[in-house]
Amino acid sequence: MSPSPSPWIRCVALPPPTLKDNTADMDRLLAALKKELGAEAVDVDLDLLKHLPLLLRKTDYRIRCSVFRDRRRWVLTGIDACDAPRPAAGIAVDLGTTRVALQLLDLTSCRVLGEHAFDNPQLGIGPDVLARIHHADSPGGLQELNHLIIGGLNTAVGEICRTTGIEARDICAVSLAGNTAMTHLFLSLEPRWIIREPYIPVVNRPGVLKASDLGIQVSPFARVLVFPNIGSYFGGDLIAGILFSGLHRRKEPALLVDVGTNAEVVLGNQDWLIGCAGAAGPALEGGVTRMGMLAGPGVIDRVAIDPASRRFDIHTIGEMSPIGICGSGVIDLAAQLFLAGMIDIRGKLVPAACGDRLRVVEGLRHLVVVPAEQSATGKALTIHQADLDSLIRSKAAMYTILETVAMTVGLNLDELGAFYVGGTFGCFINPRSAIAIGMLPDLPLERYVPIGNSSLQGAALALTSENAVDEIDRIRDRTTYLELNVNQEFMNRFSAAKFIPHTDVGRFPSVPTS
Amino acid sequence: MSPSPSPWIRCVALPPPTLKDNTADMDRLLAALKKELGAEAVDVDLDLLKHLPLLLRKTDYRIRCSVFRDRRRWVLTGIDACDAPRPAAGIAVDLGTTRVALQLLDLTSCRVLGEHAFDNPQLGIGPDVLARIHHADSPGGLQELNHLIIGGLNTAVGEICRTTGIEARDICAVSLAGNTAMTHLFLSLEPRWIIREPYIPVVNRPGVLKASDLGIQVSPFARVLVFPNIGSYFGGDLIAGILFSGLHRRKEPALLVDVGTNAEVVLGNQDWLIGCAGAAGPALEGGVTRMGMLAGPGVIDRVAIDPASRRFDIHTIGEMSPIGICGSGVIDLAAQLFLAGMIDIRGKLVPAACGDRLRVVEGLRHLVVVPAEQSATGKALTIHQADLDSLIRSKAAMYTILETVAMTVGLNLDELGAFYVGGTFGCFINPRSAIAIGMLPDLPLERYVPIGNSSLQGAALALTSENAVDEIDRIRDRTTYLELNVNQEFMNRFSAAKFIPHTDVGRFPSVPTS
Repeated sequence: MSPSPSPWIRCVALPPPTLKDNTADMDRLLAALKKELGAEAVDVDLDLLKHLPLLLRKTDYRIRCSVFRDRRRWVLTGIDACDAPRPAAGIAVDLGTTRVALQLLDLTSCRVLGEHAFDNPQLGIGPDVLARIHHADSPGGLQELNHLIIGGLNTAVGEICRTTGIEARDICAVSLAGNTAMTHLFLSLEPRWIIREPYIPVVNRPGVLKASDLGIQVSPFARVLVFPNIGSYFGGDLIAGILFSGLHRRKEPALLVDVGTNAEVVLGNQDWLIGCAGAAGPALEGGVTRMGMLAGPGVIDRVAIDPASRRFDIHTIGEMSPIGICGSGVIDLAAQLFLAGMIDIRGKLVPAACGDRLRVVEGLRHLVVVPAEQSATGKALTIHQADLDSLIRSKAAMYTILETVAMTVGLNLDELGAFYVGGTFGCFINPRSAIAIGMLPDLPLERYVPIGNSSLQGAALALTSENAVDEIDRIRDRTTYLELNVNQEFMNRFSAAKFIPHTDVGRFPSVPTS
Repeated sequence: MSPSPSPWIRCVALPPPTLKDNTADMDRLLAALKKELGAEAVDVDLDLLKHLPLLLRKTDYRIRCSVFRDRRRWVLTGIDACDAPRPAAGIAVDLGTTRVALQLLDLTSCRVLGEHAFDNPQLGIGPDVLARIHHADSPGGLQELNHLIIGGLNTAVGEICRTTGIEARDICAVSLAGNTAMTHLFLSLEPRWIIREPYIPVVNRPGVLKASDLGIQVSPFARVLVFPNIGSYFGGDLIAGILFSGLHRRKEPALLVDVGTNAEVVLGNQDWLIGCAGAAGPALEGGVTRMGMLAGPGVIDRVAIDPASRRFDIHTIGEMSPIGICGSGVIDLAAQLFLAGMIDIRGKLVPAACGDRLRVVEGLRHLVVVPAEQSATGKALTIHQADLDSLIRSKAAMYTILETVAMTVGLNLDELGAFYVGGTFGCFINPRSAIAIGMLPDLPLERYVPIGNSSLQGAALALTSENAVDEIDRIRDRTTYLELNVNQEFMNRFSAAKFIPHTDVGRFPSVPTS
C-alpha cells in the first residue's frame, strides 16, 4: 500500500489562458483550487504570486499546491512543479513547559521523517509557568522569554532538517500544541492576566498564523496552526491529546489522563466532553506533579517483590545498574510493597515485614530498594516514608479528581469504555500497579491505553488529516471546563482515597486484600 | 447635520470578563465585533493583540475599532479608546501613469482633510506603460519601478500628513485605483504578460492587502484595498470611475468617458455594463490621447469667436496672459472656428474667412490665436493645420468608439440618460463645443455630467461607504470588456465622423449648418 498524501498537498491542472479566456494567473489558479478544495475562498501571499507566472508557463499550467486551512479559510502556502524533487514538509510541535518535542513529516506521503526534543530554554528563567509569567511582567521579560523559545525552536528545526536532509524552506506547515501560558509566550502575548482573577488569556483561538510573523524560520509562506485553548488552565496540548486519543468520537464514555507538569483529565464521548486540570487546589500541590519524574537509562521503571520471599526483582531502563527511580517505578514499588505486606493500607512501612531493608535515618524510616553494592551510584537507593506519604497523597488526589469528574456527570468510573493515559507517565506506568494502590480505577486492563506524547501526536494529526482541523474546533467548543471545587465534599473523597487501595475496597475487586 | 462616521469605525462595548465568563480578550472582542458587523469572522494581526489587554482594562472594555472588509472577510485594522484624541484616517489613491493623486480622509467623520498630487516618478524610466513594462523585464527593473512608486507614495503621504497635522500611523485604510499595468508595478508583480498575447495579468483581484507588506508607511495594521481589473486593458481606475459615477445603479443606459492616458468608455445601467479602452487600434494612436494636455495658469481654456466680426474672446486659467492652449481650449477654438466659417466641414482653414490671422510657414497654414504682443511668451500663439487635422482624427475616433459601443448593444447615442465625463478633460471641456465639432453626441446639455478625477473619488468612496466595497465586485463581475475590432466597418464609421460635425448632419440638429 503506497502511503496516502496529506490533504494539504494538491496537484492542480489549470486550463491555459487564451484570447477568449484571459483570466489572470492568480485568479485562474484560485478558481481551480477552490474547485479542487470545495473552498469558498483561498488566501495567497503577494510574494508567492511573484513566482507564479513563470512557474505556470514552465509547467504547462500543472502545479503542486501546498495549502492549509483554519476553519473555512484556506491559504496557499507553496507552489512547485507537480514532479518537483523537493518535498513539501510539515513540523508538529509539542510545546511543553519543561520539554519541547518536534516531529518532521513529509506531507506528500504523510511519513514521519524524524523526531527531535530539547529542554525548553525558558527553564533558565523559571522552572514553572508561574515564575515565567512573573518574569514576563519585568521590562523586556516577555520579549526575552519569547526569543528563548523561538530561538530554541529554530535551532531544533535546523537540527531535525540537518539529520533528515530536508531544507527549512521546504517546510510549509507547522502545527503547535502547548498549554495556555506557553502558547502565549510563544506568540509574545502578555500572559499577565492568565494568573490573575478572573484568569483571562489574551487569546483562546490563535488560529492559523504566518510563520514569518512569529519568527519561525521555515518557508516564508508557511503557516502555523496554533492549537486553541479553553481557558488559562486548559490548553491546546490537551485539545491535541483529545484529538489524538479519539475520545471525542467514541459512543461510550471514556477518560483521558495526561500527567505532565499538571495532571489533566478529560471525560467524555462523541456528544460531550468535560475537562479539568490538576492545578486545582492545595490537595494537589506537589502531589500528582511529582510523579512526572523523567525516565532515563539506569532509572528503575519496574519492580516486582515476591510476596513469600520478599525478594526484589528490579528492572532498569536499558538494563543498566540502577541510579534512581522514576514515577512509574515508585508506583510499581508501592504496589508490590503493599501486596507483600511491607506497607499497610495507609502506606506506612511495616517494620516486621521490611526486615533488614528498613533503616531509620534522623528519625525517618527508609526502605532500601537497592543496596549500595548493586547501585550505580555506590550508595544505597532508598525510599523514605515521606516519599511514600507523598505518593499516597498523589494517588489519592488523582483518584479523587477522576471520581469527582465522573460524579459531575453521574457516571461510575467502571462504566468507562476506555482509559487513555498520556505522557511519559502513560508510557511507563503499569496499570496493574496503579490499580493496586488505588490510583487508577479497577478497570479490565485492556481498557487502559497508553497514548504517549498525545500532544505531539495530535499536532501531527493536524498536518496529515483535514478532518483533524475541523475536529480541533469541535473539541474546543464542546468541552466544558470543570473548575475543581476543593470543598468539604472533595476533601472527604480525598481522605477516603488516602488508603490502599481505598477505604471502600469493594471498588477494587481485583486487588487482593491483605 | 453632523457628518456621519465611516462604516469602518465602530465603538464597541464588551461585557467585562468574570470567573463565569472567562473568554479571552481577543475572542471577547471578536465576538462583539462579529455581532456589531454581522460578520462571520474577523481577522486580527497578532501584533495588534499585544496592545489589547491593557487597552481593554484601561477603557473599561469600550474601544474604538477600525475595521475594513474585502467581500465577506473583515479585518481589524486598529484599536483605541472611544474618546481617543487621534483620528482614524484613510488615504485614497488614484495611481495614474502620468500623475498620482491622493486624498486624505478622517474616517470618524468622512471629511476630506487634504489632497495632494505628484508626477509618477516612473516617468523617468518611461513615459508610457509599454516602456515601463519593457524596463521591468531587465534585471532589477521591476524592483526599481516598484521602489519608485512606493517611495513616491510614501513621500506624498508624509507631505499630506504634514500639511494636515495627521500622523502616518493614524492611517488605517488605503484604497488604490490604477490601470492594470500600474497596479502590477505597485504590487511588484511581473507585468510582462500583460502586453503579450493572450494578454494575461498576474492578478485580477488583488483584494485587501497589508500596507506593511507593500512597503506603504502608514499604520502597521493598515490594509490596502487595491481595485480589481477586468483585464490587461481595463483597470481598477475605470472600475473606480464607474463606482463614483453611479452608472451601474441607473435604470436607463448611461455612458462614462474618461480621457487620461487612454480614452476609456463604459456604457451600461443597473443590469449590464460594457466597457472598452481606447488603446484599440491605429485610428486612435496619437489621437484622443493628445487631448489630455495639462491645464494650468495662463493656459487658454475657453475661446469665443463672434461670427460676424470674427473677433476672438480668449479666456485663460487664472485670467493671466496666455501661454498656450489645452485640450478643452482647442475644442472650443475648433467649434468657434467652424461656427464662424473659418474652418470648413473637413477642418481645413478657410483663407478667405481667416484673413490676416492666417500665416503660411514652411508651406503649412497657421492660425494666429493670440498675437505676439498679447502673449505671455512674447511669441504669437498659433494653431496649425496639422493640429486641426489631429483634432479631427481624435474627435472622429472618440465619436466612432462611442457609436461602436452603443451599436454593440443596439442603442442610439441619443437614448443615453446621462453622459459622465471624467478626468481633466471632463472638468474643462465645454460640451456645447464638443457637440459642435461632433466629438460628443448631440444630447441635451444637462445630460453631460463632469465628474472630475472619478478614479480618485471612487477610491475615496471605498473608504466611506461599506456598500461601495460590495459594488466594486459587482461592477467587475458584471462588466463585459469589448475588444474594439478595427475592421472595415469601424473604419467606415470613422471616415464618416471625420467631418464637422458629421457626414450625417441629421445626428447633430443643435449645430447650425454653415
